[in-house]
Amino acid sequence: MWSVHSLASDNYAPAHPAVLDAIVAANTGHTPPYGADEVTQRAIAALRTELGADDAEVAFVFNGTGANVIALQLALRPWDHVVCASTAHIAVDECGATERIAGAKLVDVPTADGKLTPAAVLAARTRIGDEHQTQPRVVSISQSTEYGTVYTPVEVRALADVAHAEGMYLHVDGARIANAAAALHLPLGELTVGAGVDVLSFGATKNGALGAEAVVVFAEELRPGLRFVRKQSMQLGSKGRFLAAQFEALLTDRLWYRNALHANTMAARLHDGMQGLPGVRITRPRHANHVFACLPPAAVGPLQDVASFYVWDEASTEVRWLCSWDTTPEQVDEFVAAARKILTDQV
Amino acid sequence: MWSVHSLASDNYAPAHPAVLDAIVAANTGHTPPYGADEVTQRAIAALRTELGADDAEVAFVFNGTGANVIALQLALRPWDHVVCASTAHIAVDECGATERIAGAKLVDVPTADGKLTPAAVLAARTRIGDEHQTQPRVVSISQSTEYGTVYTPVEVRALADVAHAEGMYLHVDGARIANAAAALHLPLGELTVGAGVDVLSFGATKNGALGAEAVVVFAEELRPGLRFVRKQSMQLGSKGRFLAAQFEALLTDRLWYRNALHANTMAARLHDGMQGLPGVRITRPRHANHVFACLPPAAVGPLQDVASFYVWDEASTEVRWLCSWDTTPEQVDEFVAAARKILTDQV
Amino acid sequence: MWSVHSLASDNYAPAHPAVLDAIVAANTGHTPPYGADEVTQRAIAALRTELGADDAEVAFVFNGTGANVIALQLALRPWDHVVCASTAHIAVDECGATERIAGAKLVDVPTADGKLTPAAVLAARTRIGDEHQTQPRVVSISQSTEYGTVYTPVEVRALADVAHAEGMYLHVDGARIANAAAALHLPLGELTVGAGVDVLSFGATKNGALGAEAVVVFAEELRPGLRFVRKQSMQLGSKGRFLAAQFEALLTDRLWYRNALHANTMAARLHDGMQGLPGVRITRPRHANHVFACLPPAAVGPLQDVASFYVWDEASTEVRWLCSWDTTPEQVDEFVAAARKILTDQV
Amino acid sequence: MWSVHSLASDNYAPAHPAVLDAIVAANTGHTPPYGADEVTQRAIAALRTELGADDAEVAFVFNGTGANVIALQLALRPWDHVVCASTAHIAVDECGATERIAGAKLVDVPTADGKLTPAAVLAARTRIGDEHQTQPRVVSISQSTEYGTVYTPVEVRALADVAHAEGMYLHVDGARIANAAAALHLPLGELTVGAGVDVLSFGATKNGALGAEAVVVFAEELRPGLRFVRKQSMQLGSKGRFLAAQFEALLTDRLWYRNALHANTMAARLHDGMQGLPGVRITRPRHANHVFACLPPAAVGPLQDVASFYVWDEASTEVRWLCSWDTTPEQVDEFVAAARKILTDQV
Repeated sequence: MWSVHSLASDNYAPAHPAVLDAIVAANTGHTPPYGADEVTQRAIAALRTELGADDAEVAFVFNGTGANVIALQLALRPWDHVVCASTAHIAVDECGATERIAGAKLVDVPTADGKLTPAAVLAARTRIGDEHQTQPRVVSISQSTEYGTVYTPVEVRALADVAHAEGMYLHVDGARIANAAAALHLPLGELTVGAGVDVLSFGATKNGALGAEAVVVFAEELRPGLRFVRKQSMQLGSKGRFLAAQFEALLTDRLWYRNALHANTMAARLHDGMQGLPGVRITRPRHANHVFACLPPAAVGPLQDVASFYVWDEASTEVRWLCSWDTTPEQVDEFVAAARKILTDQV
Repeated sequence: MWSVHSLASDNYAPAHPAVLDAIVAANTGHTPPYGADEVTQRAIAALRTELGADDAEVAFVFNGTGANVIALQLALRPWDHVVCASTAHIAVDECGATERIAGAKLVDVPTADGKLTPAAVLAARTRIGDEHQTQPRVVSISQSTEYGTVYTPVEVRALADVAHAEGMYLHVDGARIANAAAALHLPLGELTVGAGVDVLSFGATKNGALGAEAVVVFAEELRPGLRFVRKQSMQLGSKGRFLAAQFEALLTDRLWYRNALHANTMAARLHDGMQGLPGVRITRPRHANHVFACLPPAAVGPLQDVASFYVWDEASTEVRWLCSWDTTPEQVDEFVAAARKILTDQV
Repeated sequence: MWSVHSLASDNYAPAHPAVLDAIVAANTGHTPPYGADEVTQRAIAALRTELGADDAEVAFVFNGTGANVIALQLALRPWDHVVCASTAHIAVDECGATERIAGAKLVDVPTADGKLTPAAVLAARTRIGDEHQTQPRVVSISQSTEYGTVYTPVEVRALADVAHAEGMYLHVDGARIANAAAALHLPLGELTVGAGVDVLSFGATKNGALGAEAVVVFAEELRPGLRFVRKQSMQLGSKGRFLAAQFEALLTDRLWYRNALHANTMAARLHDGMQGLPGVRITRPRHANHVFACLPPAAVGPLQDVASFYVWDEASTEVRWLCSWDTTPEQVDEFVAAARKILTDQV
Repeated sequence: MWSVHSLASDNYAPAHPAVLDAIVAANTGHTPPYGADEVTQRAIAALRTELGADDAEVAFVFNGTGANVIALQLALRPWDHVVCASTAHIAVDECGATERIAGAKLVDVPTADGKLTPAAVLAARTRIGDEHQTQPRVVSISQSTEYGTVYTPVEVRALADVAHAEGMYLHVDGARIANAAAALHLPLGELTVGAGVDVLSFGATKNGALGAEAVVVFAEELRPGLRFVRKQSMQLGSKGRFLAAQFEALLTDRLWYRNALHANTMAARLHDGMQGLPGVRITRPRHANHVFACLPPAAVGPLQDVASFYVWDEASTEVRWLCSWDTTPEQVDEFVAAARKILTDQV
């Protein structure tokens, strides 16, 4: 039985009311389909402004896997591979879509904290020019990562510089880039185009949308294919205004930032409340809206009855808690209090 | 400049208010993602009931191209091809998604009216067992077709029988199957599972949804792969309740049928109003919500100023008008009146 | 039971003794694999010289399907299609390899004689820039065609000019380009690089090799990928000297030309002998080493007992005869004499 | 400058004279193409006999990458992955052909010696039934491995049992299976069909052929697709007799076994000669025709002047020597003597 409140994932959360309002507002009369409508034009303009990239090519798509596979296809030739962290969503949570749809190999590199480094990228560069091996073409990072860690602009720039020096592109899987920007208190542009990112999967779904993502192409030579690859990759919605309206709502008055900051703040509150409880060991730095901790195995079940969450690693009973745009301080406090009671009773 | 009202396509239309209401109603609290929520379970049950197919496997997806490519992938082995009409959406409007994503050839057959026949399917069966040629595996029909024509259950059954006798599957691209059912005054089950259909792309977007389609697998041996292919083909939405809610709304009190019947009725009114006008020649039988006609070239521009529509064939100035769930009798009458004036003035 | 002599196809023929001699000669000691050997370097140089293209990129491969699919992959982006004749080998005899391996659609155009024309290429250019349709990128012609017809250099140049003007590439499937060159009494360069061809599948197997083809890339921007695509497409032989040696033999003293000229001459002799026989109607112009004719149905079986051949079209009893580098005048005369007797007896 | 003799790879070696003789003998008259000739039928029968598998489906192909990708395609559904050692040829030496052509992910597992174990296969089985991850379908092993190690029949059987218990297939990349059989002094059948192998890439090229491999399908349900996948994967040779003749030669009087045994014996001689030399440390058990050793860095260059070979790992100066069917005792002894002198002089 799932509880009404959850710490399992930010995609358990509902849509923000402003997003629904925008959809209702867009639902008037006939408009040309496939993104030729005014809402789409306005949302693209707003996203470009937010990113500080007036000439970026933007395509709204349905989901994160779609955004990632489209972004990668733009940069890959048939014999190329993608370098990513071994925890990357594209490597472990997309059912082989990159291999199947883009026909490309992923070279996944172990990391301590979900973050690639220039050294790791360079170490994975082997046998350049050797036709018996696929060639590195894209560095793909998740921002924030699957561990909730965040790349600073300096770190992103360093990866971009290495990538560009080696004839590669830098892709950012930004399913939670809003949380990263809020964690760093920085504008999106500083994390992306300003740091040398070539192509971005911009996530809205986990940030309060019903379901909408964007592919943003900064690199000029990768732009022309975007429209075609989106359509061919089955990610072009006919009633495009309803994808765009979600973005427009989130971009208005920086709702995306406030949603993300709130989720991060709740994660900080959860982190601070849980650490120090008997038997709880925080396992990873808390940057954005994730909290990871090891628990006594016997505590997991009773605590999942309070709010659902996933066991990340069965062997060590490491669990993952994710806060959302709608998580309330009261929910966090109640969860911490329940955890304190369960853990104290078990000792 | 696009007019507020349009006869260009039923995907220019907004969503039905009941669909939006259902989305708003589903937007409460946290639910498990990826279709593990209660709204999805209810919508699947409702769709199975409507189809009279309790054990059909159902997956909600984002758009029609996605539904079609998933459906075809389930049935195709690497060396198989799909037989379809040369006007089929999969052949001419999906940017080669079947070839690219499914890796499959389409063998497209010319037709008089957009409808495949058993004879055409059999004529396209050549070199069976010859490894130098792809082998026929799926017959894919559009219901209603891109010309607005409709297959009767007897016609569908005849195609299914030929397909099954030859070791093939029958797929229906039902982007407008609601309009076909309404045109025939028949339940969906009689047009699909009852007529031997193996896998169905069930369209909701053109019927009043924001953007939602379903893949329905009747053939037992094709069911197990559906979940995996949907995810891999980038068509699995995380906040699944919002796709499902659209279906639930359309399936409640058979709203889907009423929407389709209304669109068909408006098309009949348009057809009857236009035929007999000077210079207008209706070119195809009006079954569902399409009307096709040849016009004097000079009339096209002025008439598009009244309501937007596409020129289907430049050479013959054949145009296509499509009515929607929200087309009003007044809009139709106004359009006919405007046409009468334009055509009469030009004579 | 297959007869020792055959008119079924030039791939029924054995290898030329000089080809075997070259293989035996190459079989000495150890050499670096994958084309890094001296025989390969010599054969590439000889082929470049023969083509008059010093900077062409050359890769030896195993078979014609491999050569074609590699050549096409070099030019195609994911959303592109290939325009070809509906009789093209890539369209009807390669088991969907282009669709499966290259992920690309073929737009096949009916022709009278197997030859594409600039007008046909232009007529197939529709909906340019429309993301709902794949975009034309490659014009692919067979030289000589599957009907044995031959493009003149002027005709090839006209196709190249149209292709280039429209941002497309011209590919030649030259499985029988030697026969075309011999038919026109022209050097290979005039038919290829000199006529604007961008990428060529150069056939040796039907010309007297055991099994060897080459991909020759003239267009500079398509060259870098050749080595990688060949390896990935499973067409890189480790003991590369044995593919190269076959080319070296055929390129020495223009053996390729003499073989092709001989086959053409035998086809001319066969053509002249058969035409005028009772009930025989030659159906296509004889340019290279094909002869097509309609026969009385009752004559086919008895004549196939003399030398095997294929019925090209069952409905009209059109048959295809192909002469090879090793067809002898005596075999042709014997076949014609047998045909005369069979046909005369049946009248 | 490459030396005439080499220890770099067994694909540097020439073809065995008996193989060339068989090709010359097959070069008489016309035969039907694409494997419908008598040489092919005889070679298939001989291979089935050698394997003790009368109903195995056999297809001759051009090279090892082709054999592997065909074999894997037969077993894989779109959402499946292959489990293999991280050193596997399919993972690191085929330019991503499995990902590109089969569209499949490889899950590569680190091993100590190039050999997968049942425990490793089971450990890699995670998230079964979870649509967000590809599902394990094929276990692929190299026999002998890229480290020259050999699986015993008991080890192969254990892998097959685990695979089959979990609904998976066992594929063997047998580019050097002859060397494994000779190392174990066992018939091929005991290592393959008798040990539960489902599909085999049988290598002849490294065993003395010019260039020829076979895909052998034991599992009944995987057989029907073989012919089609071979053609579509561009691995069907038109003059099929010349591939088959190579197999017939190697299968006559078990030449394949004698060639492999000889190469193994030479490797044993090399191994025994090198171990104990100053500064030489043998790094891996010598099972078949590979010898691995760490050398003083300064010795590598001078020793490569004696006979070419590859540095396997730059960091540790681990080198790889491979003996071939034509390596002579004198060459081995001369190489060891030269090494002794170089190493002694350098100390």
